[in-house]
Amino acid sequence: MHIGFLGLGNMGGPMARNLLKAGHSLTVFDPFPQAVAALVEAGASAADSPAAVAKARVEVIITMLPTAEHVKQVYRGKDGLLANIGPGVLLIDSSTIDPLSTREVAKYALAQGNPMLDAPVSGGTGGAAAGTLTFMVGGPDSVFDQALPILSAMGKNIVHCGAAGNGQVAKIANNMLLGISMVGVAEAMALGVALGMEAKVLAGIINTSSGRCWSSEVNNPFPGVLENAPASRGYSGGFGSDLMLKDLGLATEAARHARQPVALGAVAQQLYQTFSLQGNGGLDFSAIIQLFRGEA
Amino acid sequence: MHIGFLGLGNMGGPMARNLLKAGHSLTVFDPFPQAVAALVEAGASAADSPAAVAKARVEVIITMLPTAEHVKQVYRGKDGLLANIGPGVLLIDSSTIDPLSTREVAKYALAQGNPMLDAPVSGGTGGAAAGTLTFMVGGPDSVFDQALPILSAMGKNIVHCGAAGNGQVAKIANNMLLGISMVGVAEAMALGVALGMEAKVLAGIINTSSGRCWSSEVNNPFPGVLENAPASRGYSGGFGSDLMLKDLGLATEAARHARQPVALGAVAQQLYQTFSLQGNGGLDFSAIIQLFRGEA
Amino acid sequence: MHIGFLGLGNMGGPMARNLLKAGHSLTVFDPFPQAVAALVEAGASAADSPAAVAKARVEVIITMLPTAEHVKQVYRGKDGLLANIGPGVLLIDSSTIDPLSTREVAKYALAQGNPMLDAPVSGGTGGAAAGTLTFMVGGPDSVFDQALPILSAMGKNIVHCGAAGNGQVAKIANNMLLGISMVGVAEAMALGVALGMEAKVLAGIINTSSGRCWSSEVNNPFPGVLENAPASRGYSGGFGSDLMLKDLGLATEAARHARQPVALGAVAQQLYQTFSLQGNGGLDFSAIIQLFRGEA
Amino acid sequence: MHIGFLGLGNMGGPMARNLLKAGHSLTVFDPFPQAVAALVEAGASAADSPAAVAKARVEVIITMLPTAEHVKQVYRGKDGLLANIGPGVLLIDSSTIDPLSTREVAKYALAQGNPMLDAPVSGGTGGAAAGTLTFMVGGPDSVFDQALPILSAMGKNIVHCGAAGNGQVAKIANNMLLGISMVGVAEAMALGVALGMEAKVLAGIINTSSGRCWSSEVNNPFPGVLENAPASRGYSGGFGSDLMLKDLGLATEAARHARQPVALGAVAQQLYQTFSLQGNGGLDFSAIIQLFRGEA
Repeated sequence: MHIGFLGLGNMGGPMARNLLKAGHSLTVFDPFPQAVAALVEAGASAADSPAAVAKARVEVIITMLPTAEHVKQVYRGKDGLLANIGPGVLLIDSSTIDPLSTREVAKYALAQGNPMLDAPVSGGTGGAAAGTLTFMVGGPDSVFDQALPILSAMGKNIVHCGAAGNGQVAKIANNMLLGISMVGVAEAMALGVALGMEAKVLAGIINTSSGRCWSSEVNNPFPGVLENAPASRGYSGGFGSDLMLKDLGLATEAARHARQPVALGAVAQQLYQTFSLQGNGGLDFSAIIQLFRGEA
Repeated sequence: MHIGFLGLGNMGGPMARNLLKAGHSLTVFDPFPQAVAALVEAGASAADSPAAVAKARVEVIITMLPTAEHVKQVYRGKDGLLANIGPGVLLIDSSTIDPLSTREVAKYALAQGNPMLDAPVSGGTGGAAAGTLTFMVGGPDSVFDQALPILSAMGKNIVHCGAAGNGQVAKIANNMLLGISMVGVAEAMALGVALGMEAKVLAGIINTSSGRCWSSEVNNPFPGVLENAPASRGYSGGFGSDLMLKDLGLATEAARHARQPVALGAVAQQLYQTFSLQGNGGLDFSAIIQLFRGEA
Repeated sequence: MHIGFLGLGNMGGPMARNLLKAGHSLTVFDPFPQAVAALVEAGASAADSPAAVAKARVEVIITMLPTAEHVKQVYRGKDGLLANIGPGVLLIDSSTIDPLSTREVAKYALAQGNPMLDAPVSGGTGGAAAGTLTFMVGGPDSVFDQALPILSAMGKNIVHCGAAGNGQVAKIANNMLLGISMVGVAEAMALGVALGMEAKVLAGIINTSSGRCWSSEVNNPFPGVLENAPASRGYSGGFGSDLMLKDLGLATEAARHARQPVALGAVAQQLYQTFSLQGNGGLDFSAIIQLFRGEA
Repeated sequence: MHIGFLGLGNMGGPMARNLLKAGHSLTVFDPFPQAVAALVEAGASAADSPAAVAKARVEVIITMLPTAEHVKQVYRGKDGLLANIGPGVLLIDSSTIDPLSTREVAKYALAQGNPMLDAPVSGGTGGAAAGTLTFMVGGPDSVFDQALPILSAMGKNIVHCGAAGNGQVAKIANNMLLGISMVGVAEAMALGVALGMEAKVLAGIINTSSGRCWSSEVNNPFPGVLENAPASRGYSGGFGSDLMLKDLGLATEAARHARQPVALGAVAQQLYQTFSLQGNGGLDFSAIIQLFRGEA
């Protein structure tokens, strides 16, 4: 198929490459010429604006953008996608943004004859490169079915979450819980060690008890507990604290609009904001344990 | 062996029965005569005070008491255990109390020649009856080895957590994390549903993603997600909210003495305290989701 | 002067009346015909759209609207104010909205030759009727001077807070602190009474000590402490809990964009959200004490 | 009168001096010989143990000790006060400790014929030296009347708070609110400045609005707002962050025993614990603003 792809950053770049590998032809856009050049070298055609992508007679357009503002501008701006595509072109937005903005854009797209899916991902840059991302997808059944083969070229776990916006809802609900769990594990490990336990012994007990969770088993924040976790390599790599902060912000802001209390989510957000203000936003989000050990 | 057992409540009663079943002879004490009578009927001998148990030439004494105050009084009171046993009697306290009190009592016991273990349990009344409890044990290696066959008559997972007090440390660190996780799952589920997702779909996504944890997989707080969880039977049975509140209190209080911050642990404690004040302390601790759904 | 006034609700209505009393001529708009009719009866002219107000050759336009969305639409919509006024018309927005939106609208207004002030108020419906509001004003010195006589007809304390948007900043910073203080007083009073003190005695001590604040001295949340406070009349009247919730939401959202932690502000927001979800949003914001006394 | 005084630290030392100045004769004890020597030089007699003070035929004994453990040991230990005084000796404990411990000790004292008051103070080392402390006093009316002239030699504001323990209740309720207010002011000032306001202008608005409180008016945490506040001299002097942390710990612990939620109190405690862990416990408690400005 002929696919348009906008947003060729750390995530979008490798995702686009996997589409090329799967035999699709791509027309790509990114404000950074180097990002475009790298994809062109890999076989894609370059476009110099969102409008140019839209006019390139693509059948599908995929976007991977940093914020809701970018999404709104790229889709609904004067030189944006919606003003320049014909009806029937399938739109897939893989950006992580708030569900309200997603639903607003999808409504406009649908009104002019373009089915749209929100399909945020998890799995990080590693998953993007390996084509093993999880896609959380919101939109009608038939549109989901249409998109499935394309998404399968970039990920291995494609989950239909319900109507438009529900991909975003699933993503921010899961990631809010992830942020809370990580802080919880950080507090439990720091407390246990402060009271005299060995970190590995405590982690072993937690991982076979009711406290077990992904954050304790797979990304334990205490250095030395897991050899391959970011905690054992200075918190480099992994999912950055500032990205967790962004997702917690999306969750609490969506909760505000839904008039839904999220007490621990809000406190976790404040803790990550404090940690970021101290200059640690680039560290893996498990580094939040430093705030509880006097190291931040 | 001849074993003394003090504290024959919902947990202690069935634990003592399992010791009888394993062929041990028991001398038991409890301030409630009915509790004593039930054990006597099952084959135990009755004693009318802690001192009387101590003087009954038991080789091992096990205690299962509600608070640190009870433990201090039973062990160190005038008519208590320590003043009335000979050297060499092995002491095992299975109460869940703060590690500082545990260590203080163990120090006194050891000073007069009585090795002591702290061995709090998890697994609830079901595990106590079935003999499948987990024991988290603090104390010297040799004493742990000595106690292992006895504990194995009451539980199936006997974990050595390190020196005296570490059984309590492991218990409260794990349960603090459990409380935080449960509130986190409650917030994430309530948020997702408020934003338009189906509860089962959301739970399915969380359970295969980075938000997965015991509280979402085994005891999901949203009614209808898990057929056999307390949430699907009006939050009856399970681990009561007031018990979770007690453990969160032990954790934050131990953290205070260790000068260790536990931000989410403290907020979770306040949420359970608020929930309890509204008259819900008897519901399973997953019922905290009602606070986030306007039902509490 | 000839003044346009948009938004004739509980606050805007009495404010507009005070302008009439001061001798100004008014052209007014509100989507509710009854609100318009009442002002017309008092001497104002009616307009049937924002554009109609703009075209009525007014020298000044004042807006008092519920949300940033309303402000953006009224000022920047197709049939809005900016598209229909001539240069030089002075714009004053007394809505309480986020500073970012305020600054964005003011920038557009200025670019087309219309000086604009943000001038949110405090003092409630009582102050609006009596003409004793406090105005917190953001914008250039010369524009502030120009607006001063007009604002003085509606309030008695007109404070210049600095450049555009700073009126909103002052309002949300003050009100976030107010919300935190109120919850703090509620917790301190509830704790003292739970521990055996008489509420009036405790309030007296706080009010002559370092805990003293507006919330303890003027609007003490404990029933019976202050005869004329909302707490002594079932929490009716006063500043509604849902209005406090709105302001706490504006504060935390502005903090998020500024990457500024506000830990207690965020928790206070969650407490008011929980209280609102329980159906108490219409009570005076001092009623939050019910959440701490098992009455909510 | 002949008065015994135990605990001659930063607070107790100057308080004892003021009693000497008022013409009382003193027998004093402190574990630090230098502290005793200084008072002997000023005219007091030295005792080498609490028991020795008790046996010195004093009519009144005043204690000023750091923790509840110290109070319990000094009063109820084998060589303590209660075991060695005759009936009728008036006991006044000015330590800041939890109300439960206070009430327990007072009950024992009364049972053996010694009336006892809890009389914690506020006003800091400056107030102790100047004799201008505030005393918050718990105990029976007649005993309060008896103590009044003695307390008046050390303070100028002597408040009767009700029955035994209520002095402590008033102190911790007020100081919990003080800690919450200070963090609230810190957040509001940091937020306002981050959003573009001048600190002095914002403080001025808050101090004439509903956000006003002791922490904003008298001890504003933003450097430069108040010339004579600790914030304008590197946060030296004043009331140390670790002392605030201690009082917040007493408040939340008393709340736990009373089953009383104190959400913001608990979060404020965690913030001060985090700040202390970063090595800032010696700074005035207004320095907590550094945690919100990326300076801690």
